[in-house]
Amino acid sequence: MTTFASDNYAPAHPAVIDAIAAANDGHAGAYGADPWTARAEQLLRAQLGDDARVFPVFNGTGANVLSLRAACTPWGAAICTTVAHLTRDEGGAPERVGGIKLLTAPTADGKLSPADVERLCARLGDEHQAQAQVVSIANATELGTVYTPEETRALADAAHARGLALHVDGARICQAAASLGVTLRALTADAGVDLLSFGATKAGALGAEAVVVLGGGAHVRNADGLPYLRKQSLQLASKGRFLAAQLVALLEDGLWERLAAHANAMARRLADGVRDAPGLELAQAVESNAVFARLPAEAIVELQRDWRFYVWDAAAGEVRWMCSWDTDPDDVDRFAAAVRDVLAAHAAA
Amino acid sequence: MTTFASDNYAPAHPAVIDAIAAANDGHAGAYGADPWTARAEQLLRAQLGDDARVFPVFNGTGANVLSLRAACTPWGAAICTTVAHLTRDEGGAPERVGGIKLLTAPTADGKLSPADVERLCARLGDEHQAQAQVVSIANATELGTVYTPEETRALADAAHARGLALHVDGARICQAAASLGVTLRALTADAGVDLLSFGATKAGALGAEAVVVLGGGAHVRNADGLPYLRKQSLQLASKGRFLAAQLVALLEDGLWERLAAHANAMARRLADGVRDAPGLELAQAVESNAVFARLPAEAIVELQRDWRFYVWDAAAGEVRWMCSWDTDPDDVDRFAAAVRDVLAAHAAA
Amino acid sequence: MTTFASDNYAPAHPAVIDAIAAANDGHAGAYGADPWTARAEQLLRAQLGDDARVFPVFNGTGANVLSLRAACTPWGAAICTTVAHLTRDEGGAPERVGGIKLLTAPTADGKLSPADVERLCARLGDEHQAQAQVVSIANATELGTVYTPEETRALADAAHARGLALHVDGARICQAAASLGVTLRALTADAGVDLLSFGATKAGALGAEAVVVLGGGAHVRNADGLPYLRKQSLQLASKGRFLAAQLVALLEDGLWERLAAHANAMARRLADGVRDAPGLELAQAVESNAVFARLPAEAIVELQRDWRFYVWDAAAGEVRWMCSWDTDPDDVDRFAAAVRDVLAAHAAA
Amino acid sequence: MTTFASDNYAPAHPAVIDAIAAANDGHAGAYGADPWTARAEQLLRAQLGDDARVFPVFNGTGANVLSLRAACTPWGAAICTTVAHLTRDEGGAPERVGGIKLLTAPTADGKLSPADVERLCARLGDEHQAQAQVVSIANATELGTVYTPEETRALADAAHARGLALHVDGARICQAAASLGVTLRALTADAGVDLLSFGATKAGALGAEAVVVLGGGAHVRNADGLPYLRKQSLQLASKGRFLAAQLVALLEDGLWERLAAHANAMARRLADGVRDAPGLELAQAVESNAVFARLPAEAIVELQRDWRFYVWDAAAGEVRWMCSWDTDPDDVDRFAAAVRDVLAAHAAA
Repeated sequence: MTTFASDNYAPAHPAVIDAIAAANDGHAGAYGADPWTARAEQLLRAQLGDDARVFPVFNGTGANVLSLRAACTPWGAAICTTVAHLTRDEGGAPERVGGIKLLTAPTADGKLSPADVERLCARLGDEHQAQAQVVSIANATELGTVYTPEETRALADAAHARGLALHVDGARICQAAASLGVTLRALTADAGVDLLSFGATKAGALGAEAVVVLGGGAHVRNADGLPYLRKQSLQLASKGRFLAAQLVALLEDGLWERLAAHANAMARRLADGVRDAPGLELAQAVESNAVFARLPAEAIVELQRDWRFYVWDAAAGEVRWMCSWDTDPDDVDRFAAAVRDVLAAHAAA
Repeated sequence: MTTFASDNYAPAHPAVIDAIAAANDGHAGAYGADPWTARAEQLLRAQLGDDARVFPVFNGTGANVLSLRAACTPWGAAICTTVAHLTRDEGGAPERVGGIKLLTAPTADGKLSPADVERLCARLGDEHQAQAQVVSIANATELGTVYTPEETRALADAAHARGLALHVDGARICQAAASLGVTLRALTADAGVDLLSFGATKAGALGAEAVVVLGGGAHVRNADGLPYLRKQSLQLASKGRFLAAQLVALLEDGLWERLAAHANAMARRLADGVRDAPGLELAQAVESNAVFARLPAEAIVELQRDWRFYVWDAAAGEVRWMCSWDTDPDDVDRFAAAVRDVLAAHAAA
Repeated sequence: MTTFASDNYAPAHPAVIDAIAAANDGHAGAYGADPWTARAEQLLRAQLGDDARVFPVFNGTGANVLSLRAACTPWGAAICTTVAHLTRDEGGAPERVGGIKLLTAPTADGKLSPADVERLCARLGDEHQAQAQVVSIANATELGTVYTPEETRALADAAHARGLALHVDGARICQAAASLGVTLRALTADAGVDLLSFGATKAGALGAEAVVVLGGGAHVRNADGLPYLRKQSLQLASKGRFLAAQLVALLEDGLWERLAAHANAMARRLADGVRDAPGLELAQAVESNAVFARLPAEAIVELQRDWRFYVWDAAAGEVRWMCSWDTDPDDVDRFAAAVRDVLAAHAAA
Repeated sequence: MTTFASDNYAPAHPAVIDAIAAANDGHAGAYGADPWTARAEQLLRAQLGDDARVFPVFNGTGANVLSLRAACTPWGAAICTTVAHLTRDEGGAPERVGGIKLLTAPTADGKLSPADVERLCARLGDEHQAQAQVVSIANATELGTVYTPEETRALADAAHARGLALHVDGARICQAAASLGVTLRALTADAGVDLLSFGATKAGALGAEAVVVLGGGAHVRNADGLPYLRKQSLQLASKGRFLAAQLVALLEDGLWERLAAHANAMARRLADGVRDAPGLELAQAVESNAVFARLPAEAIVELQRDWRFYVWDAAAGEVRWMCSWDTDPDDVDRFAAAVRDVLAAHAAA
């Protein structure tokens, strides 16, 4: 049965496995000097612009830390929200491995604003504070909300005006683009994004991401250092073809978009199925493949007996229900029914 | 055609691909909370001791840097040879990501001695020097030579007597064990090794390694911090089952040993085939899957027209010929013949 | 004329200069192996407990970063307020040089509470987050307020119960103790503080601080590593006697207390002199040598024509007026009169 | 009695103390915004060129680590000798605090050669190795030898041709210049040096150094980041006037040169006094204020009963005798006589 715990619980799409098997063919150059890597680069450039520079890496933490390292000098800082994966869930890697201070802004919906950027840039030029050099947003956000191209552009303008780069943690960039019905390029390079952590793992790979420098990387201080930074950040695969093959499988024939659209549709289906249940409140707009809801603590406990999902904020009674590329609509319906039943019983008690 | 460039050029063994496909089955706990990871741990403990603690990671650089971080406090240093992958080929990651100074000893055969350890520990207690806290050796070494269990034990004793841990960079530990005809345990835990970078990628995986704490880890200062250090070192896979499945495939039924033995046999076959060629000198004992040879510069150039391999030391005319689990004996014979022919022509000229 | 800009604008007390001149006598052991350092240690132990371990350093940033490094393993984090000097004014050194993530709590008065500690420890044991290992408070705080021994003890208990150390940034610990009329020991070691950045510079030295491990340092993970960490943190003076002589001068005969009491008295005198001025609001309780006040923006501009002080929060119209050991009461009276005059004129306009 | 242990054992010159006392006059801007700092900058520019940028710091380790950080990106490495203070005596700070790998060359006389630079630059462009970005030499060297302007220029050319900066650890640059009878500028800026750790402490200060960017800093990657890097490297003094006053005292009226010349003369006097003693061999040319000598182990033990100095290499029977600005010629003569007596007795035995 599919769970609602995390899109990391999902397997890989069979096409990804097939691609890996097909790539397992004879000797090939190591460290990315292979035809699969060349093909992945070609496909990502087709999506993101001819000037995109592509650096496959192992995982999302690696992609994000490498992106920050690419954007910052040793006295640099990164601006993000207080719920950013960067600050909450990377094990202190930005600070310890990257040496980068995070300047955080609280938000209601997980989305940073140009005013946040302006405020957190107040001490540019002051030697007593690490200097903001990159704005990092997640799209889709950690709360399942989505930045539009216009919102992204506004942030890029705010960043660029102050000499900062704009980085997108795109662990779920496929889901964001599919949700908006726009191309990856419209949501990134064309909206002024300088650096993208392109997320394939949550999109249906078994484990592959890529750091992509967009639009020439004029605001990316260490763009030319990325080959060295990737190696040094422990993210250079020796048999690189097996990362690349995964990216190719998802990028060819628009598989990424179909899988993301499915995941999003499942989240909407779930939200629709529970929206009117007594005592339940949707905590965030359902704009990608996550549903955030608040419900009574006892109901949460009861639901977790049969279903696997995470409590996001115990104090607030907030839970996170994630859908993925393989979420079964019948499972969604069963789960929604269970939520309604538990809440109805709770309301009656 | 198989190359003699690197065991990283080889594909994965088909059993590894099959294992990945088999693991691609429904939802599973993320970050290692899955049955495949449990099985990999079980199999590694069967090989390395019941008290082994297993931390799968992405690649060799990751395994090595994580191991050093596990062994050292922030004022710690690591002892290794001047040809160690750690100091030559990790992109400065030990220093930048680990913050760890490397204290290096020159060697003729790539093998550190207890006397080296003693000499490089001379300044223990002196606040003006980073403090040696771990000895790191590669087995098989970067020069294809192999430490015996007795040699390993002597190093472990030298390390432990001074409060240091002994780490083995085991990118080719399978090849070393197969070469000696001993178990992995005899060559590591039973010989006093505290920390092992268990290498699966060069043994036939598509990309998987594991840091293993052996024998209780009494000398491993941060043994209990490894879960945090792995995450922070960008080495925690979200869909961890796919790393684990690779380890399982190699460890079950002794596949690792058969593949390593084949690679070693191919190196010996190659060495035997070229040993008597005029103008060629074997630069190192052929004890694992590498052949190091010195030959005239013109002969190297000529051979590289048709065959892919690396020049190890251009000034010395030294080349490295690597064999791997899939090296074809016919390719070996053809290559050896080519070497003989080129050298004979060169000698006649 | 004395300024109200910063206690760093003040000179050193003449007794400090005399002590340096007196220490300038012949050869002496380097790196702290000298009689002045021994005497400084003795005097600090007399103040802070016989088991205090003393490490003189150059400046406050050095003392604070060294303290955090002493308290944390490489996966550690520090808890502090959002206005902590550590996070606002150390140039990103805790993160870049220490590798330490800061977990911050907003406060109204600059003072952390046990509830903050509890909340920010919620993810102890979760490998996805850096692990809180030290609570760091400033006493006096950056807002001029003061923790009592009881408040300090409550924080120490909250920290120790979770395995964390309690560090006090004591850049103004002399002022805090003098304000409360308690001994340095009552406010630190006896209240459960594990690590103290003892601040001499703002107390009247020309440039000297000391990291002091208190009470045996049971909660200080790297207490035994401090000699190495100090050297590595660029804080080991070669001619150490000149740091020590400054500490001795301030600690002998209670000079530190007289100077701190004077600075505090000047702040109270200033606060009393402006308290009733129209349009002025004291923003914080005046508990040490700082006065925080809110007043109209135009009044600030006008005052800054003749007087030197810093705007703390331009948006809120908040200014900081610092007094120091040498602040002249006549200057205070003149400045208070100027404030009253400017505000009266402004109110009349 | 003066010792021959270290120039760090010497006190400060009285003019330095007087300068500090004179600077202790009223309020002054913090963090270097004071007239003494402006004067120190002016005097250093007079010595080193009008385009010199000056950053006073606390100590030599700070100056050296800050210089490397100024010269390197996060994937950078520094080239130095195996006896460099940087690699032997900075407590691992270059690696841990700077994140910088050191690429070391063995030398007989402590002096790096252009051929060393060429060899250690062999892997520029290879992502598997940290990239050499700065050559760091000490002048005078750790072995008391001195680079001439011509030798320095040759190293600068070798460095610049490959895109590297040339840094001079000038803990004893005054002694080197005095020894050669050249200006500081001839030995640094005019010889192509990009970055200088200007050493005042060993020249007669109580504790002050400065990082100086020379000649426009074209090869210094982070020249514009130095204010941030200094703060972050824990090297920004709050009461900056007291560092600056020391620099001023030494730079005015050529005091630095007279003191350095005296120290050098004392070393020559000592060398001349022991040169012909039986069983003694001078291990290095005596070109600055150090004498390195080899003598029998028993003689060393006997001499250390009455005289304080360091054994440099116990295995080789090599000792280091340092002279300083205050070394008394009578002490030199007495010590030389003691050396001769002990060796004569030893030879007779």
